[in-house]
Amino acid sequence: MKRNSAMVIGVGAELGLGAALCRKIAANGYHVIVAGRTQAKLDAVTKHIASRGESAESFMMDGASEADVMRLFDKAMSPPDDIDVPSLIVYNVGNNRYVPFRDLTQQQMEDFLRSGPVGGFLVGREAARRLAPLGRGTVIFTGASASLRGKPGFAHFAAAKAGLRMVAQSMAREFGPLGLHVAHVVIDGGIDGERLRSARPQVANERGENGLLNVDAIAEAYWQIHLQHPSAWTHEIDLRPFKEPF
Amino acid sequence: MKRNSAMVIGVGAELGLGAALCRKIAANGYHVIVAGRTQAKLDAVTKHIASRGESAESFMMDGASEADVMRLFDKAMSPPDDIDVPSLIVYNVGNNRYVPFRDLTQQQMEDFLRSGPVGGFLVGREAARRLAPLGRGTVIFTGASASLRGKPGFAHFAAAKAGLRMVAQSMAREFGPLGLHVAHVVIDGGIDGERLRSARPQVANERGENGLLNVDAIAEAYWQIHLQHPSAWTHEIDLRPFKEPF
Amino acid sequence: MKRNSAMVIGVGAELGLGAALCRKIAANGYHVIVAGRTQAKLDAVTKHIASRGESAESFMMDGASEADVMRLFDKAMSPPDDIDVPSLIVYNVGNNRYVPFRDLTQQQMEDFLRSGPVGGFLVGREAARRLAPLGRGTVIFTGASASLRGKPGFAHFAAAKAGLRMVAQSMAREFGPLGLHVAHVVIDGGIDGERLRSARPQVANERGENGLLNVDAIAEAYWQIHLQHPSAWTHEIDLRPFKEPF
Amino acid sequence: MKRNSAMVIGVGAELGLGAALCRKIAANGYHVIVAGRTQAKLDAVTKHIASRGESAESFMMDGASEADVMRLFDKAMSPPDDIDVPSLIVYNVGNNRYVPFRDLTQQQMEDFLRSGPVGGFLVGREAARRLAPLGRGTVIFTGASASLRGKPGFAHFAAAKAGLRMVAQSMAREFGPLGLHVAHVVIDGGIDGERLRSARPQVANERGENGLLNVDAIAEAYWQIHLQHPSAWTHEIDLRPFKEPF
Repeated sequence: MKRNSAMVIGVGAELGLGAALCRKIAANGYHVIVAGRTQAKLDAVTKHIASRGESAESFMMDGASEADVMRLFDKAMSPPDDIDVPSLIVYNVGNNRYVPFRDLTQQQMEDFLRSGPVGGFLVGREAARRLAPLGRGTVIFTGASASLRGKPGFAHFAAAKAGLRMVAQSMAREFGPLGLHVAHVVIDGGIDGERLRSARPQVANERGENGLLNVDAIAEAYWQIHLQHPSAWTHEIDLRPFKEPF
Repeated sequence: MKRNSAMVIGVGAELGLGAALCRKIAANGYHVIVAGRTQAKLDAVTKHIASRGESAESFMMDGASEADVMRLFDKAMSPPDDIDVPSLIVYNVGNNRYVPFRDLTQQQMEDFLRSGPVGGFLVGREAARRLAPLGRGTVIFTGASASLRGKPGFAHFAAAKAGLRMVAQSMAREFGPLGLHVAHVVIDGGIDGERLRSARPQVANERGENGLLNVDAIAEAYWQIHLQHPSAWTHEIDLRPFKEPF
Repeated sequence: MKRNSAMVIGVGAELGLGAALCRKIAANGYHVIVAGRTQAKLDAVTKHIASRGESAESFMMDGASEADVMRLFDKAMSPPDDIDVPSLIVYNVGNNRYVPFRDLTQQQMEDFLRSGPVGGFLVGREAARRLAPLGRGTVIFTGASASLRGKPGFAHFAAAKAGLRMVAQSMAREFGPLGLHVAHVVIDGGIDGERLRSARPQVANERGENGLLNVDAIAEAYWQIHLQHPSAWTHEIDLRPFKEPF
Repeated sequence: MKRNSAMVIGVGAELGLGAALCRKIAANGYHVIVAGRTQAKLDAVTKHIASRGESAESFMMDGASEADVMRLFDKAMSPPDDIDVPSLIVYNVGNNRYVPFRDLTQQQMEDFLRSGPVGGFLVGREAARRLAPLGRGTVIFTGASASLRGKPGFAHFAAAKAGLRMVAQSMAREFGPLGLHVAHVVIDGGIDGERLRSARPQVANERGENGLLNVDAIAEAYWQIHLQHPSAWTHEIDLRPFKEPF
């Protein structure tokens, strides 16, 4: 029996969603390839998983670099003898930032698109090329309320997330019938992670208990999508704190 | 320690979704009130659950009758000493039928609306009245692809399902912050149950393995929604067979 | 050359949208059947149109009564010699009112549904039966932001409007290819009419110039939909004041 | 009295939508800046407009080049004495092409995004910077059914169009209240233009009369959006041939 494996692309700080996804998947017995831009952050996640007797490895990469994505898949598709090729791939790349529309630069817009539809397509294409012929596997993309709705100061973020959503939707319609489960998670609300706690600590306090999205609770929803039976697959799910207005 | 309890309104044949929801919930240790129009069908479900050493009772009712809905909640909110008030309520009433638009009667339209927004509102209102003050509980409504999209020959079904969806959405926005988790499940595709197998047996054959929605797989998705942590609640989820075009 | 004709179902006060639609259509040379519940209101609209040398007649009816809808179409489809059968039908029935969900009665929910999907279906069905065979005609339904979104205190209104929208959408998909143009107008914002001016006069003042929807401007949009060439038909359009948040 | 003016960015062949928009606007007395990549095509449009005694000028540019967009607005905002600054701007850049997802290159995805959200944002940003302070003007973006829906073989096109739609929606929410009317037109169906007639002539024949979108009919819809009164603005409209399935 080979050990199952997974890849999470877009892993940053230990308090973030990417790290929580890695921990959740590893805790279920999978070997996890922990992929992101910053070696030290990846290693912190990998070490923590290893400290629990579970299995993970770091993979430093730029999620929007074709060469890096190819390297990642080449590695993952040629695993050691006791590990299977990945059956779960999460594309979790992306950031958010308010920029007044009239101040937005072309560079900023293009950077957001690289994290969104460009990187998402590169990872999705390789997943389709390599897993669809096997007739199995799950690919999950992290979206946001901006995937569905453009707001003042977030045109760049909404354009990137809506573009990524269309990549996911196009993939689901094409590769679902081939056995590849493609899902898109609309995260609506602030994530209780390092980014928000350090940038806007008062927000976390104001929201009160469970007023922000807990990363482990989000990771559980991803995991349940992966476990779904092929007769009842979800393509899109929303997640928000119980008190979040929507 | 009291036993948890649940209600499923809209239970018919043993092969149907309502019965599968009851079995899934009972298998997780809950006492289940099995509610529907036909005593014999309810009893078949209840007996099967009892035969596994689990707990259920039948409740014959019309889901669109205010008096019946009040009776149901009065009973459920005054449980025996060892059973808790319901923490999970599923509104699963509804049927589907192709009727050419020019042949549709007022009676047919009104009957569909009674199963949809009228019955859904009655159950939802009682859930809101009785569970919101407790600050906990889950209410899940069964929707369909017609909840989002009107097609020729299904104006009545789409009107009913879209109306029901708005009841669910209005409730979620109002009662979520009070601790009541309101969710809407968009079932997209044929359900592999008695209705389809007897009415159109060739469809089941043509679709092949997992080409129809398995009721136990659907029930698992409802159950996972109920288990969600309040920091990451889903309001809407879609479910379809892996090969279903959408 | 016969005079064109139209019907507007749901005409109330002279300051309202129904009356503005009648005036707009009559000003374009059509004979207009002005249909609604209150004879005096209908007559005020009809007389005003006649005073401009244009053509209209009152028709008292309940928009959700099958018998009344049949009477209306029987009359309209047997016009005097110099008038053509209607080529434009507007279903403009409906009201709005905030009702806390836990206080909503079954009667209230059913009344809203009667104004929404029930009445809309009756009018739509007769339009389909009688105009589709002629291969021409326009049917426009008045919707609201609640057609797309349920909010606290408006479950009944959203259920009715979403149901009506599904009737319109189902009709468009079936009867568009037969030459019947079916459209749905999403009115998003307060209408600067008698209802709002008398019920909440301060709102009109706070909004300032063009902060509420002008009924003549709305009527112009309906008229433009009617004029569209069959190679570029609109099914759904939104209308809101320039400063309305959305 | 100065002559009104407009800009159409994304003008190609005379049979295309861009050229039809220019003709429609010029025929209503506006001076039109005809902007696109190919001088000869622009000149053909400009000459045809001049031959009718109307007013237009060519402006060769790349719609996704920041420098070109700046040059365009600098010129348009400093018109001759008898011409006003533009009050209508149409962003009509974009193409479509089926590419199997597994064959899609990063270059192709990025090219589509440049025509979509990148170019749309550059034009939109300059419109916001220069027209919002004047409190008037209309900006219309050309979308497609892919703006709302991803399909196999069109992930790149859907990502681009959905991203562009989010730019339009974000702008509308921010700049509408400042007096800038931002609209998005969802064109659903084949356009009866040079591209389709030369690439797939049989499609035009199969569809029959009015089975494809007539560019002049589309242009009329854009023009009506521009004419809307600020108390009843449309943000999004769909256009399709009467027989188009949707």
